[in-house]
Amino acid sequence: MDDSSDPRATRSRQAILSAARELLLDQGPAGVTHQRVAQQAGVGRATVYRHWPQAEQLLLDVMDLAGLPFFAEPRVPLRAWFRRRLRELADELAMPEVAAVALTLMQGAVWDEQIARQRDQFVRTLTERIAAGLALATRSGETGGETGGEGGSTTGSGTGSTPDPHDAAAMLVGPILYRTALQGGSVPDAFIDRLVDQVLP
Amino acid sequence: MDDSSDPRATRSRQAILSAARELLLDQGPAGVTHQRVAQQAGVGRATVYRHWPQAEQLLLDVMDLAGLPFFAEPRVPLRAWFRRRLRELADELAMPEVAAVALTLMQGAVWDEQIARQRDQFVRTLTERIAAGLALATRSGETGGETGGEGGSTTGSGTGSTPDPHDAAAMLVGPILYRTALQGGSVPDAFIDRLVDQVLP
Repeated sequence: MDDSSDPRATRSRQAILSAARELLLDQGPAGVTHQRVAQQAGVGRATVYRHWPQAEQLLLDVMDLAGLPFFAEPRVPLRAWFRRRLRELADELAMPEVAAVALTLMQGAVWDEQIARQRDQFVRTLTERIAAGLALATRSGETGGETGGEGGSTTGSGTGSTPDPHDAAAMLVGPILYRTALQGGSVPDAFIDRLVDQVLP
Repeated sequence: MDDSSDPRATRSRQAILSAARELLLDQGPAGVTHQRVAQQAGVGRATVYRHWPQAEQLLLDVMDLAGLPFFAEPRVPLRAWFRRRLRELADELAMPEVAAVALTLMQGAVWDEQIARQRDQFVRTLTERIAAGLALATRSGETGGETGGEGGSTTGSGTGSTPDPHDAAAMLVGPILYRTALQGGSVPDAFIDRLVDQVLP
């Protein structure tokens, strides 16, 4: 609480978070108990209880994906920016630890209101950042007319146009999630290019 | 085991499966215990144990999504067929029970090998069925050249072409999953049209 400026407390907080993250990866959410976290972190159980009276809250803090820099700070050219950001997301989600946290957040939200709020926050953040990227693409003239390189005929009506940020988020992140969490295996650059082409036609 | 032809055994099996499905929806996977299932189904605990000695196996059977008719039996015109099948999938996943089962399958597979096998089976089935749909689209001339209605110039090279079935599955199912399981809310027909346009350009 008040010990946020105490370097020792900060150190033990970090050690507890890392230990909880490792346990989540090894054993699933059920493995994140005060006792195991304390043992793994090399701190007393009372210390874990002091920082996180509830194991669920610790699990939530471990799952703080919203703190990750996905899709932050859009830059021109937007096509390259979207590619880089999707590459990062795909590489993150290909790591078992991150996939485990993402799936725990998704599944836990069905039955737990607090987890649902955290999921909603994360989803909202992603949409806002993608919206910022699309808005900059529009301002810098990167949407429409760039499809074939010449003869920019269809300047964005109907399905060939840039989707709204809500749809764009689902069309960019959904396939990456499906590939990493369900199909397994890596995400080739060509697949990422395809996804970007849908959003910036 | 040998009682599959006994109508009473079939009835109690069905009652147990329904009860387990309801408990999964209400309480999550942890709620699916022999005792609660027996109570909810109105059968003896011994009956539940006889059919499913392991609660995990019961949970797996409840989660038998591969038995669902997603993307079965492709028909021309394929564009309309893909639209109908995606509409069905979106409507199924919008039901809390189906979403809960799908997410439990996804998350459980991270830590449980048996669930991972079931997930892989489901993902493989989806890909095979989508492959059958795309193959029929190619045979019936529905791929490429249909984009704008006239002047079919770009007949499918690079990112404008029809993706392979593995990629197509991720591009069709991933956004639906993201929309229903993460963003919440309904899936409009216009969004489904967008997804189909990507796969049958």
